Formats: sequence, C-alpha cells, structure tokens
Amino acid sequence: MDLPVFYAPDIQPAAATYTMNEDTSKYCIQVLRHEKGDQVLLADGRGHKFTAEITDDNRKKCVVKITQCETVPPPSRALRIAISFTKNASRIEWFLEKATEIGIQTIIPLVSQRTEKEKIKAERLQNILVSAMLQSQQFYLPELQEPQAFDKLVKNNKDAQQLIAHCLPEQKKELQHTMQGGKDTLILIGPEGDFTPEEIKLALDQGFEPVSLGNTRLRTETAGMVAVTIMNMVQ
Amino acid sequence: MDLPVFYAPDIQPAAATYTMNEDTSKYCIQVLRHEKGDQVLLADGRGHKFTAEITDDNRKKCVVKITQCETVPPPSRALRIAISFTKNASRIEWFLEKATEIGIQTIIPLVSQRTEKEKIKAERLQNILVSAMLQSQQFYLPELQEPQAFDKLVKNNKDAQQLIAHCLPEQKKELQHTMQGGKDTLILIGPEGDFTPEEIKLALDQGFEPVSLGNTRLRTETAGMVAVTIMNMVQ
Repeated sequence: MDLPVFYAPDIQPAAATYTMNEDTSKYCIQVLRHEKGDQVLLADGRGHKFTAEITDDNRKKCVVKITQCETVPPPSRALRIAISFTKNASRIEWFLEKATEIGIQTIIPLVSQRTEKEKIKAERLQNILVSAMLQSQQFYLPELQEPQAFDKLVKNNKDAQQLIAHCLPEQKKELQHTMQGGKDTLILIGPEGDFTPEEIKLALDQGFEPVSLGNTRLRTETAGMVAVTIMNMVQ
Repeated sequence: MDLPVFYAPDIQPAAATYTMNEDTSKYCIQVLRHEKGDQVLLADGRGHKFTAEITDDNRKKCVVKITQCETVPPPSRALRIAISFTKNASRIEWFLEKATEIGIQTIIPLVSQRTEKEKIKAERLQNILVSAMLQSQQFYLPELQEPQAFDKLVKNNKDAQQLIAHCLPEQKKELQHTMQGGKDTLILIGPEGDFTPEEIKLALDQGFEPVSLGNTRLRTETAGMVAVTIMNMVQ
C-alpha cells in the first residue's frame, strides 16, 4: 500500500519538522483519518521526497517530523506541450490531470488563430496539477506557463526537438517514428479547428517537424493525451 | 471542413431515403441549423457510411435522400479491453469517449476482486459511445459488453493475444514491446487497488502476458486510455 503524499511547497530541504496548512491538515486528519504515529510522504514539487511521521494530528495544524529526505532524479529529458485550451473547461482540466499522471514537464496554453479560449484560471489549474502529482506519487510539479501566442512561441522556442501535430492531409510521419529519445521536446497541439495553413508553414520554416497522432480524428484534449503518452514511450 | 455525421442504426443498406428520429432531427436542424440541400453523413455503426442530402428540414422528422453508400474497411485486428469500472461514473465515461476516439472494438466492464463498480448504466454509456463515434468520424460502434467476472473471462477468452497490466513489482515488459501487430488482442486493466496476486497468477497460468504501461502510477481510466493508445500504435 503506498504511503499518502501531501503537498509541502514551502518546506525547507533540511527541515526536521513541518506543519501542514489548514486545508492539507483537514484532508490528512479529517478526510483520510490519519493519526499520530502514521507515516506519510511530503512533496515540495521540486523533486524532494520527504518521509515523515505525524507527531500532532491536529486537524487544522497537523505537524510531522521528517525522518528522511531524498532527491528524486529528474527525467533525462524535458517533455513540453503547447496546447490550445478548449472552450469547455472540464475537458482541458481532464487533460492537465492525465498529462501529469503520465508525465509532462511543461504545459503551455497555446493561443493560435482558431483557439477557443485564451485566458486561464491559473489557481484552479495549479490545484489540479498538484492533486494529480500527489495522487500519482510523483515529486516534480509540471510547470503551467502563461498563455503564449503561436507565432511568438514558434519563433523563440529553443528545445532540441520541436514537433507540430496537425490534421492537414500532408506528408507526416507518426509521432513515435519521428521523435528521438534523449532530447528536450516541445510538441504543439492545435484547436478543434486545427492550425491554419499559414501557422503550419511558419512552424515548419522555424524547424518544427510535422507529426501524425494516428488514423482517427481526435479532440484537442485527446490529442494532447495521446501525444504525452507516445512521447513518454520514446526514451 | 468535415461533413457532420448522424446516427442511423436502423437504416437499410440499399435505402434511397432515411428519416431521422426526433432527437437526431432536432440536433441536426435546430442545434446545428442545417437546411434543405445540405450534405450530411449517416453512420449505422456497422461500417456503412452514407452520404446524403437533406430534402425536408423538419425539426422533428428530418428526411434525407441517400446519394452514396460505402463500406468502411474494418480494422485489420480487433482491439479489446476489459477494464474495472470506477466508482466515479464520470471517470469511466471519459474513458469510453477517449477509447472510442482513439480506436477500440470491444469494451468489457471487468469485475475483479477489488472492482469498485459492478453495475453499468448501459443506455447512458451506449449514448456516449455513439456520440464519440460520430464526433470522431468513425463508422464502427465499439461493442460494450455486459460486466464479466475476472475468473470466467480469463478462462474462456480466446483472443490470439492476451495481456494483463498490473502494478506488482514483477518482471514485466512494456506493452509496446510485448504486443505483436496483426493479432486480435485483449488487455485487462485492474481497479485502483490493482488485481490480487491470485488473479494475476490465474491470468498468467491461462496464457496472459504481463505488461507495464510506463513508469508512473496511473488511475484506472488513465491506464485504459494509455493502453488503447499504445495498442493502436502497434500495427
């Protein structure tokens, strides 16, 4: 049975003790019904995994003593996805949760010509990323960036490998046959209406490689999840 | 721009005309605002793709004339997934939608020892499969079977390739390195609490191969989606 993981963004690496905030304390003690003496894990979202034991099971100010701190090795290469956010908020929220579970380092809300939603609810989305990180027993919190305009992103991005998934009937190889392992990689996922031909041309001119995500028509959030799954497979 | 696809489960293959039922007519005429003369597609869910033109845009009884009927080739091999349904209905509904978009032929609600939900709302889930099929421009409706008990399924199943994904720290190869293309394949996905050691042993004794879905801890519905994605990649 896995130990439960709680979020401790403000914990000091050499800390001997830690006091959970009110929400986390309530969740730990009241909802999950942990007690004094129980072992738990803490994650700071920056790769540190703290093993701890509850010393005060106060439901508003739970205190733990740290018994061990280890640094989880980061992934050997960064996977980054710039994805056009959907008008339907719950769809992109599903994507954020699933992408975190499967493994992603950076998520960029992409604003392209046909993008349906340009603004994001940063705090709400951040909570979704934190919950997904904890639930999947991971210790690095994905970075959710500010929305970026398509043109600016494709011109300025510097990842070793840059990919664009689109639906136009052009010559494209499958993502799994295009992507090389061991390189920091950014992939672009467009809105339901796809990228415009001009946007695709701009990306290709900037060195992005066009990829296919399979034979079927995928919703934006599904395309994002398929891309994250395949990228994680290519070591 | 793709033509919209409407569900016509009762259409005759040689039909010259078709009358949509009330719900579909309302969706076509009132919601999507199609008019007399517009071209649409009809899907019977059994591989037939009908091109049609609206001749009567009645919002309760929309009539189309069929201009073409083609049979879409079925997939070269059947992908089948038996997955433990989650207590939270929206999570498994999300899975059904995504699995259909990406490509799946059979979905079996799996009842294993730690399964959280044994009953299914067949009609509601069927509607989700239909919507996902239409939205993703496909013409074969995935089959949603009745719930099956784990023991009975592993003993009676006859697919050429049988796989079980589990989280116990045993020797397992990744799904993409285990699965062979061109064979009808069934994969088993367990509940949040995983399969029991006895269940895994029974499956292995019956010829199931154990597979890993990656390095991170996945929720049941996420594991299902990752499995469907990877299975579709292996041709």
